[in-house]
Amino acid sequence: MSVQVGVIMGSKSDWETMKLACDILDELAIPYEKKVVSAHRTPDLMFEYAASAAQRGLKVIIAGAGGAAHLPGMVASKTIVPVIGVPIKSSTLNGIDSLLSIVQMPGGVPVATMAIGAAGATNAGLMAGQMIGAFDEEVRERCIARREQMQQAVLTGSDL
Amino acid sequence: MSVQVGVIMGSKSDWETMKLACDILDELAIPYEKKVVSAHRTPDLMFEYAASAAQRGLKVIIAGAGGAAHLPGMVASKTIVPVIGVPIKSSTLNGIDSLLSIVQMPGGVPVATMAIGAAGATNAGLMAGQMIGAFDEEVRERCIARREQMQQAVLTGSDL
Amino acid sequence: MSVQVGVIMGSKSDWETMKLACDILDELAIPYEKKVVSAHRTPDLMFEYAASAAQRGLKVIIAGAGGAAHLPGMVASKTIVPVIGVPIKSSTLNGIDSLLSIVQMPGGVPVATMAIGAAGATNAGLMAGQMIGAFDEEVRERCIARREQMQQAVLTGSDL
Amino acid sequence: MSVQVGVIMGSKSDWETMKLACDILDELAIPYEKKVVSAHRTPDLMFEYAASAAQRGLKVIIAGAGGAAHLPGMVASKTIVPVIGVPIKSSTLNGIDSLLSIVQMPGGVPVATMAIGAAGATNAGLMAGQMIGAFDEEVRERCIARREQMQQAVLTGSDL
Amino acid sequence: MSVQVGVIMGSKSDWETMKLACDILDELAIPYEKKVVSAHRTPDLMFEYAASAAQRGLKVIIAGAGGAAHLPGMVASKTIVPVIGVPIKSSTLNGIDSLLSIVQMPGGVPVATMAIGAAGATNAGLMAGQMIGAFDEEVRERCIARREQMQQAVLTGSDL
Amino acid sequence: MSVQVGVIMGSKSDWETMKLACDILDELAIPYEKKVVSAHRTPDLMFEYAASAAQRGLKVIIAGAGGAAHLPGMVASKTIVPVIGVPIKSSTLNGIDSLLSIVQMPGGVPVATMAIGAAGATNAGLMAGQMIGAFDEEVRERCIARREQMQQAVLTGSDL
Amino acid sequence: MSVQVGVIMGSKSDWETMKLACDILDELAIPYEKKVVSAHRTPDLMFEYAASAAQRGLKVIIAGAGGAAHLPGMVASKTIVPVIGVPIKSSTLNGIDSLLSIVQMPGGVPVATMAIGAAGATNAGLMAGQMIGAFDEEVRERCIARREQMQQAVLTGSDL
Amino acid sequence: MSVQVGVIMGSKSDWETMKLACDILDELAIPYEKKVVSAHRTPDLMFEYAASAAQRGLKVIIAGAGGAAHLPGMVASKTIVPVIGVPIKSSTLNGIDSLLSIVQMPGGVPVATMAIGAAGATNAGLMAGQMIGAFDEEVRERCIARREQMQQAVLTGSDL
Repeated sequence: MSVQVGVIMGSKSDWETMKLACDILDELAIPYEKKVVSAHRTPDLMFEYAASAAQRGLKVIIAGAGGAAHLPGMVASKTIVPVIGVPIKSSTLNGIDSLLSIVQMPGGVPVATMAIGAAGATNAGLMAGQMIGAFDEEVRERCIARREQMQQAVLTGSDL
Repeated sequence: MSVQVGVIMGSKSDWETMKLACDILDELAIPYEKKVVSAHRTPDLMFEYAASAAQRGLKVIIAGAGGAAHLPGMVASKTIVPVIGVPIKSSTLNGIDSLLSIVQMPGGVPVATMAIGAAGATNAGLMAGQMIGAFDEEVRERCIARREQMQQAVLTGSDL
Repeated sequence: MSVQVGVIMGSKSDWETMKLACDILDELAIPYEKKVVSAHRTPDLMFEYAASAAQRGLKVIIAGAGGAAHLPGMVASKTIVPVIGVPIKSSTLNGIDSLLSIVQMPGGVPVATMAIGAAGATNAGLMAGQMIGAFDEEVRERCIARREQMQQAVLTGSDL
Repeated sequence: MSVQVGVIMGSKSDWETMKLACDILDELAIPYEKKVVSAHRTPDLMFEYAASAAQRGLKVIIAGAGGAAHLPGMVASKTIVPVIGVPIKSSTLNGIDSLLSIVQMPGGVPVATMAIGAAGATNAGLMAGQMIGAFDEEVRERCIARREQMQQAVLTGSDL
Repeated sequence: MSVQVGVIMGSKSDWETMKLACDILDELAIPYEKKVVSAHRTPDLMFEYAASAAQRGLKVIIAGAGGAAHLPGMVASKTIVPVIGVPIKSSTLNGIDSLLSIVQMPGGVPVATMAIGAAGATNAGLMAGQMIGAFDEEVRERCIARREQMQQAVLTGSDL
Repeated sequence: MSVQVGVIMGSKSDWETMKLACDILDELAIPYEKKVVSAHRTPDLMFEYAASAAQRGLKVIIAGAGGAAHLPGMVASKTIVPVIGVPIKSSTLNGIDSLLSIVQMPGGVPVATMAIGAAGATNAGLMAGQMIGAFDEEVRERCIARREQMQQAVLTGSDL
Repeated sequence: MSVQVGVIMGSKSDWETMKLACDILDELAIPYEKKVVSAHRTPDLMFEYAASAAQRGLKVIIAGAGGAAHLPGMVASKTIVPVIGVPIKSSTLNGIDSLLSIVQMPGGVPVATMAIGAAGATNAGLMAGQMIGAFDEEVRERCIARREQMQQAVLTGSDL
Repeated sequence: MSVQVGVIMGSKSDWETMKLACDILDELAIPYEKKVVSAHRTPDLMFEYAASAAQRGLKVIIAGAGGAAHLPGMVASKTIVPVIGVPIKSSTLNGIDSLLSIVQMPGGVPVATMAIGAAGATNAGLMAGQMIGAFDEEVRERCIARREQMQQAVLTGSDL
């Protein structure tokens, strides 16, 4: 299977968070690529990346960014491939700036926004899996299996 | 084509907003169903709806709710079908409660969150289209065409 | 006396906070049970727990959860037993997301919401005691005694 | 049955909201009294009201207040009768001040906080009903019946 | 000179902050008393303290409290002596709850609110000094002298 | 009695709110002056006003301002006369910007901050009265009388 | 004098606000151009506009946008011409989302952010004037004159 | 070249942040001066500094301040030299108070506001460079060169 998901982030320091999305994609055996693409420092690279995404066969793009987080929305403006946005926890405002910058997109250009920080990155991987799984039975089965394992883990550990 | 998208909402009063998602699905010629399903007032209906979504062939669920908005996340917990959440603008806190209740999901159960209110509902329809379009060329073409028309409308009206 | 209070929480990591509620119930000699029940990871267990609460003789349920905290509200939707909600302090937004997700319930399904974090867990135990104490003189006496001790502790230590 | 619930509020202008709590108590046939008691303008009346509540047989107190809303917490400090707090929507900050002033009680003196505004007042009535219903079968039956009617109303109106 | 200022606080843990107000009063040679008086845990003591403040000759009361901070406003409701409120930084919401609970008083009962935390406690001492200084030339002179020293300290250290 | 209180505001549009402070001063028979003094548009006038306040016999200054509300704090930096700040409700952020700009003063220069908007303006007049009343028995008596009238008005209207 | 300032905005509906910036530029006799350029709907136009700004002789760009407001920051990433950002008041969150999306730029790409809404648009025109005026005496003189007129208007109307 | 930029800050503790602005000015070889000037503790120095800025040849002033941050706005009120404001991260509210106090200036007196904290200080230096660079080709070239280096650094490090 060719690369299905592109995982990009605004800065190398976002990798610590975004790695969690990649971990899930590994777990679900979904081929992906990963790259630092900065909306503000490498705008042309960002546009090229977004503009070529559909042709390169990407089914989903996961984009993480913090502060005035423009990467997910700007990538979304340049491609029809669905974009999942991960608000990185910012140092001053705890990521509420990242969240609002990503989620409050105007009508016409959607970004599928996840929770701030680690939970959001993990869920970006899972959402990508579920989106692909809606059309790919094998991926869907792996998503279901993971869900059941998670449930089982809670059930066996539910006594305190 | 059978029903591809389920559009649900917590209350009849959400229809004014959620209608915008349906308008987009009509525009993109994607078959959908729509229903009031309340997390708090009809929890069993909600669980049945979610649990049977995959078997009924749904590829995406769009769920709108306001205040302590539990519908998108709870539906997501009962199905592997990807769920798009629309935070309805609430009467007291302008929808910031709806947004946080929907987007801040724990790792394991993602909800693809849109903007608060009308823009979010419109974008939920488009995101559903793009998710399906990643695997269905006809839908993708219609998404691209709509994007271009939108761009054209701005360009022809860009003088003030 | 049979089990009167059910103490549940969305994740094992919430135990550190929720233990404070149990400490109070121990102090007030109110029999209780405790369990991890996750709204998102074990939704069926949650519904069974809630649906059987009244029959099992529970007079109060205390539910703690963080982030998009759906546990208290969803349990409340499935039982007529009064539910006390404890917003767990979340890692990114300090629990303001937990608070709004729990307290902003729509008309029809109430959750008795406490303060964020440790104070809230302690008070959940006390509120359960006071609710039972309104109908059980022994419990009421113990609540009153504890209140007086607390007052005395402040009075004897009020000089600086 | 003697008066079971005391409904108080900080200002006559809160009656518009707090009336909704009384409507529910009427519906559930729970005897109640209602009164304007201001924490800041009639502090002595407030203390007398709270201090005599248990002797007068009250099982629950519902207290609504806005802004720097001290009524619920101060009443709670003077009685062991459980207090339900309703944050009134304030003119400048939409009730977020009312909410935080009521819910963020220190460990030792709980207030069962409801949603801001109308939904909160309605739910205060229902929570009082459920608290009494935990020990009074007739009230419980009426609470269950109301819950079922609400559910039925959604189900019959769930088509759009 | 008899005691002019009463410095009270809701909890012994507030002393670390409120000590800064006392340091200023020492510096300005204004006689004061200090005490832990909890609105919620010792409401009667609080009312007695407030009710007797004017007779005991207090010209100003400084009250510090955190979270659902009711102490300044409730003391203010029971005395005509001006009350200065200091919002203590709270563990979950950084004191924004303390600030709103203190400052958003309804028309009729004012509290002179200071900044959250250490700066607020220092300024409470200074504001007490300035309020007394408006009618007492010696205190005023000491306030002016302190102001000039502070200015001088900045001026001599303004090069980097 | 000479002018005791200076009432200033940043803009003529603030008069609607600040008039309430003057109404109270009229009621308490405290002589005052009133003026538009803008921190940003008439900085020199502001400094002259503040610098001459003590010599002109002012005992208190009441300053109202909105948005990035610098008037109260800057006046406070230029005089030892105590300054009461009134945050005017702003058109975009409801006065939360005004409140934080006024209340969060650094240690060294206090501003006695009131609630946002109308309640704050009313209370500014009362706080000025109480500050003067601490040293002037006639004013104090009028403050007490007003307090009692307010209490009486609630008591006679407390039935619903 | 050739065109010195480019005024752009994300949507035709922003013109009502952004017109105020143009009014100031007219007043200061600074030649400008104005255009709708949407970051999300016309990303290529935006990049072309920004990339050619310096060559076309622009000294300043004023960019207004609302919600997830990416226009100012993205234009700033593509040009060395200084960009002034105006956060448009948004329908759901009053422009706090617009403000954070514009102001919280990462180190490396600055945007000179103004107040939310009308005041911000007016000030964008003035800031452009002052930036040009720092190097152009005629413009500076007009800025000074306008400042003095504004001051005079307050002074003559400062009595109430 | 004579001094072009004045870098001022409200307190010596702000130097840690504001040093980053100076580092950029060093990098761009723009002559600057730096000084502690406190709005609240040295108001006269602040006014003198601002009033003489234009005559001393300053083209830009960079002012950093925290909490109720009045320095940038008050300096801006006393000079026609453009002022860049840097909100210092505050100890209690993370700089949201600093940001609102600086950015929400009324129409008539603009402040070019940067991000909270370190990123904002860095960008203040760059914005000063770009403002001067719009009229000074050498500075502009250095700004462009720095931008390209930054871009290059991301591009060479974009693989993970």
